Amino acid sequence: MKLTDIYSRKKKEIDYIEKQLEVAIRTDYPILYDASLHLLRAGGKRIRPVFVMLGGEFGTYDISKIQHVAVSLELIHMASLVHDDVIDDAKTRRGQLTVRTKWDNRVAMYTGDYIISKALLELTNLNITSLHRVMSKAMVEVCIGEMEQIRFFYNADQRLRDYLLRIKRKTALLLAVSCQLGAVATGASEYVSRKLYDFGYYVGMTFQIRDDILDLCGTEKELGKSPGSDLKQGNITLPVIYALQNPELNLSIREELKRIQAADGQTDVTKVIEMVRNSDGIDRADQLAQRYIAKAIAALEGLPDILAKRELEQIARFIGERSY
Amino acid sequence: MKLTDIYSRKKKEIDYIEKQLEVAIRTDYPILYDASLHLLRAGGKRIRPVFVMLGGEFGTYDISKIQHVAVSLELIHMASLVHDDVIDDAKTRRGQLTVRTKWDNRVAMYTGDYIISKALLELTNLNITSLHRVMSKAMVEVCIGEMEQIRFFYNADQRLRDYLLRIKRKTALLLAVSCQLGAVATGASEYVSRKLYDFGYYVGMTFQIRDDILDLCGTEKELGKSPGSDLKQGNITLPVIYALQNPELNLSIREELKRIQAADGQTDVTKVIEMVRNSDGIDRADQLAQRYIAKAIAALEGLPDILAKRELEQIARFIGERSY
Repeated sequence: MKLTDIYSRKKKEIDYIEKQLEVAIRTDYPILYDASLHLLRAGGKRIRPVFVMLGGEFGTYDISKIQHVAVSLELIHMASLVHDDVIDDAKTRRGQLTVRTKWDNRVAMYTGDYIISKALLELTNLNITSLHRVMSKAMVEVCIGEMEQIRFFYNADQRLRDYLLRIKRKTALLLAVSCQLGAVATGASEYVSRKLYDFGYYVGMTFQIRDDILDLCGTEKELGKSPGSDLKQGNITLPVIYALQNPELNLSIREELKRIQAADGQTDVTKVIEMVRNSDGIDRADQLAQRYIAKAIAALEGLPDILAKRELEQIARFIGERSY
Repeated sequence: MKLTDIYSRKKKEIDYIEKQLEVAIRTDYPILYDASLHLLRAGGKRIRPVFVMLGGEFGTYDISKIQHVAVSLELIHMASLVHDDVIDDAKTRRGQLTVRTKWDNRVAMYTGDYIISKALLELTNLNITSLHRVMSKAMVEVCIGEMEQIRFFYNADQRLRDYLLRIKRKTALLLAVSCQLGAVATGASEYVSRKLYDFGYYVGMTFQIRDDILDLCGTEKELGKSPGSDLKQGNITLPVIYALQNPELNLSIREELKRIQAADGQTDVTKVIEMVRNSDGIDRADQLAQRYIAKAIAALEGLPDILAKRELEQIARFIGERSY
């Protein structure tokens, strides 16, 4: 099963949100519009809008309200991608040229700032101050997460909790907030929106761990790039942290990391990938992902038994599935 | 007279805002805090907070409300500076190392994003949705203004209205919004806050024109950098646009601009500065600045005759004064 099958009931509304995203970034200023549209057309799973919509079904569902939260969250996500591409000197993303490649770093930076501003403007269509509070708090954390990632580049001494806090900020928080704010926008109870936040958070943790495993275990075809791009960048992910805990591997992985860092990532990383794959790092990372999925599903308990609840559970199970 | 003399009545409150700015950027994440604090300590005229405070006196003045708007606007301004420095490859600003020089471009970019997020979070301390609407609309325009500036680099065919629209977005809007939102936060009438917006807009236009004239006419000591930095960057300002309207100068200025562009700004710009200084460009730019100040003062008519009104008029006259 694909994620898109689970989305099928929401197909029409997802298409509607897609159009609203285009409306939201509209401006008569050509470069900003073209760059934003390029970013939008590069696609993505639109998991944040889907979470907003499903969260919204726990209150008095109203797509005219939901849409603003969904658009705003997807825009914030897009803005973080375009700024990340500048930082990472990324040439492509999802097989498309990045904004910084097609235009330049200046355009990418201001396009990011522009999209952030449009995301906030979108939210002002609803008269709920708490939306702004939750969103801006999440944005602060996302920025700290991005900086954390840089700080821990090539650091073989980082702890499991450093990694977990980082992926919470970098990924899980925006998914948590998506579920939560969908519910807030439709007037669901505090209890329900808190549970949905927890659900989104746990799913987000799994999502990032899966992504990090895939970067080590996926094929070039699956990834759209060669495996090990995280390692080349210095980003030490969960399977590597676990592999480093193995005394027999620790020293040789450290040496490889030093070598990669000295080459500024412009080197073959097959050896360290092999070491991690042959360790128990992948299995242990997978087990942690499973535990998060169990927590996500547990968070749904106590919520009213509506279709959206069962779909959220399906999405969680799908994200938890091992595909490598 | 200095601007700080006009501020004297507000000295205590400006110091308080200064402290609140430090509180607002606080985080236990070291680099982001250090970089933000570095930016804050680099100083500035804090004209946005002063406009917020004076605007606030037209309603039911309450510093506990005012402070959030003042802090938010100054932070948005700071964030735009740190991102501009990345774009401009600026080594120093106000005689201090820029964040991108002291740390690097990555830190500068995320520090900017972080400060934007903190600015928005600050605003959520007030339960007024319209603040968010006005602020995010202004931010959208500021981004377009920054892009506009890049688009028109070295373009000798740009029109007066291109320049005016650009400095409106780049500078005047945030000053307009500062005056306006101070009044909105203290519950002043729609009429009053609109008039204050107009005042801030006209003062902002003058402010930028003055700044652009000074870059051509100031001494190295006054500017803290050699004159003509706008020209080196390709930024064609009002006096140059006027000078280009002189048929006798047009061709030679164009040639100089082409030469500067070909050298990517790494060349002597004395010749074109001299041509502009010897043209009527400076005088005509000055006359336009005077007209904007007259409009600013006219915008204050019809507002209640309180001390803040007379101080705003003083500030406007001060900004309008010719100092070269």
